[in-house]
Order: sequence, then structure tokens, then C-alpha cells
Amino acid sequence: MHSSDSIDTNRPETKHPYKWDEVKRVHHSDCRIFEVERVTFHHKPRNQSGEFFVINTKPWVHVIGLTPEKEVVMVQQFRFGSQTLSWEVPGGLMERGESPIDAGLRELREETGFTGDEAELIATISPNPAIQSNYCNFVLVKNVQKTSELEWDEAEEILTQTVPYDEVVEWAHNGKMIHSLSITSLFYLSKYL
Amino acid sequence: MHSSDSIDTNRPETKHPYKWDEVKRVHHSDCRIFEVERVTFHHKPRNQSGEFFVINTKPWVHVIGLTPEKEVVMVQQFRFGSQTLSWEVPGGLMERGESPIDAGLRELREETGFTGDEAELIATISPNPAIQSNYCNFVLVKNVQKTSELEWDEAEEILTQTVPYDEVVEWAHNGKMIHSLSITSLFYLSKYL
Repeated sequence: MHSSDSIDTNRPETKHPYKWDEVKRVHHSDCRIFEVERVTFHHKPRNQSGEFFVINTKPWVHVIGLTPEKEVVMVQQFRFGSQTLSWEVPGGLMERGESPIDAGLRELREETGFTGDEAELIATISPNPAIQSNYCNFVLVKNVQKTSELEWDEAEEILTQTVPYDEVVEWAHNGKMIHSLSITSLFYLSKYL
Repeated sequence: MHSSDSIDTNRPETKHPYKWDEVKRVHHSDCRIFEVERVTFHHKPRNQSGEFFVINTKPWVHVIGLTPEKEVVMVQQFRFGSQTLSWEVPGGLMERGESPIDAGLRELREETGFTGDEAELIATISPNPAIQSNYCNFVLVKNVQKTSELEWDEAEEILTQTVPYDEVVEWAHNGKMIHSLSITSLFYLSKYL
């Protein structure tokens, strides 16, 4: 028996996969900015159980700052996972109680010193629904300009540039920009230009 | 002093961030399909050290199957991180020694039974350079059709549909598709349609 499901494909003869039931959840590992849990799920129709590793962390926000000339505020920083300098849109962890828009405006201001006059939440997606429980919000801020001092975290060191949209798209195609979430933000931005 | 860097922005007066030097790397946690390490880096100009958590796993492959009618092969499955049914392009872990194209063709065949006659690696990106060391390849397979039996892994249960590109794009905008890597694949696919 399949669970009820708000997803409707509007096609006949679709049989959606079963939504496994959570049975147990135990802490596995503390990794400072994220936590790993082992979560046991049960698939009732198959009478099958399995344990899966899930990464929990705060919600994320990525922010697309657009100048009056429609250039995108891009940042370059060293990333410890890839061990490369990475071009990205600004982003970070949302603080408790913060709205996506407030978090996006804060990250933009802290990392780049840019502020703007209109902010809009344009998408909320999952960085990786297979292994992560958190979501990532994309906030678009229009008419941004450099108005503030930088407020970097201790390990931050950031190069900021405003770059025409078409050039950022080219960076995604020629390998100069490799961060999937920044590339996802370009997908959404294209609708707003 | 900054390390030499092949990234060149073609702009004057850019000062790239320093590429931190890896000093030490210790195993932190085994999470079956991924491993967490604690990696110590040193920032020489600042004489600053820091320990960062990095997720290691196999390279990933995501595969975009296009039918002769230019519909995209989409799969829906339950995802244990988000605890939702998720619409995605097929994908998974690359096996040792596998090329991205071979891995993409294998995942497409195993998950959906679709095979095609032309395969191309269209992008290699980082799922998250801040905390992950692995890369994700996007493989485009044209002229696919259902020819094979399904070969699901033990915990897999997959609904397959072919969906017009414009409709998949709409799914990304209306929240029916939330996986950032699948949305990234749409970004790249748009250049090939």
C-alpha cells in the first residue's frame, strides 16, 4: 500500500515509490558545522528495514546580488573540501530565527560589503536529498552597491567582483566556477533577468 | 605571498585569496557511503592554522537521457535525507576504474532500463567544495529508449517517466523537483537542446 502523496504527476498508471517510515534515529558523529545521524527506516510493503546515514546542518542561504548594470556579485575563496579557490555567489548558514531574506542580506553584506534595496526569495531546494536533511534558499537582491565594511569570519578571505551574467554562465561552462549550488542559482536567476 | 594560480580573472588589481596548505589529515568518522576526515590547514601569510571537516566519497555521476522526442528520463524515488519522494535525473556513485560515460550509461540502464547510442560528458562540477572533496559528472545520452530490464539496488524503488524539457524546468520552478544536482544538470542540458 502506498502512502498518500501530494505529488501528482497528472499521468495515469503511475505507481509512486513507498515513503519509508522512520523507526529509529541515533547520533553518529559530531562534525562541528554538521552532524551525522544513523536513521533506521522501514518499508512496510516489503517488510524491509535499513539504516541510512543522514547529514544534518542548519539551513543554508545563497544570495544573488545584482548591480543596477545587471552584474552579479561573485566571491572567490579557498574551499577546504575541494582544496581550490572557488568562484561562487555569497552564502552561508542561516542563524536561528533568521528569515531567508535576512540571512541573504546579512551574508551579502558581511562577505562583500554590498547592500541592496529589494530582496526576494526565489527558490528553496535541497543540496542533496539522498544524504542531507537541510534545505538551501536562494535570495535575489537587486540594485546592490558597495556600502559597508567587510565582516569576515575568522577563516574567511574573500575576493569580490561584479561580473556580467553571461560571463558567469560562461564560467560555469568552462570550469572556472564549479560549485553546484552557485550553478543552481544561475538557473533560477535566468528567469529574473 | 600568494600561491601561483591558474585562475586569471583578466582584471587588474585582483588579489586572490591564499590557498591554505594541508598540514595534517586524520580519519574522523566512517559513514558507509562516505567518510569524514578532520584536515588541518595552515595559512602562511597569517600564520593561522585551522581544522576543518571534509566529507570524502566516490565520484558521482548524473545522467541525462534524452529520447528522440527530446524528453528527459526522470526518476522518482524516496530519499532518506529529505524524507521525501524526489524527482531527479538518474545517478549514483562511480565504481573504481569506471569512466564517467560508462558509469552514466550503467546508472541509466540499471535504474530505468533505458539505453542510448551517443553519450557525452558535458560537465564536471563540485557538489559542495566547502565540505566535500568529490566531484560529480554529468553525462548526456541521446536517442535513449527502454530496452533493458531494471537492476535496482536492494533499497531502490524507482518510478521512471520521460518528461518534456520545458516541463522539467517548470518542476524546478514550482518545487516539484528540488535536488540541486538535477537542477544543475538542467542548466547544462539547456546548451545541448
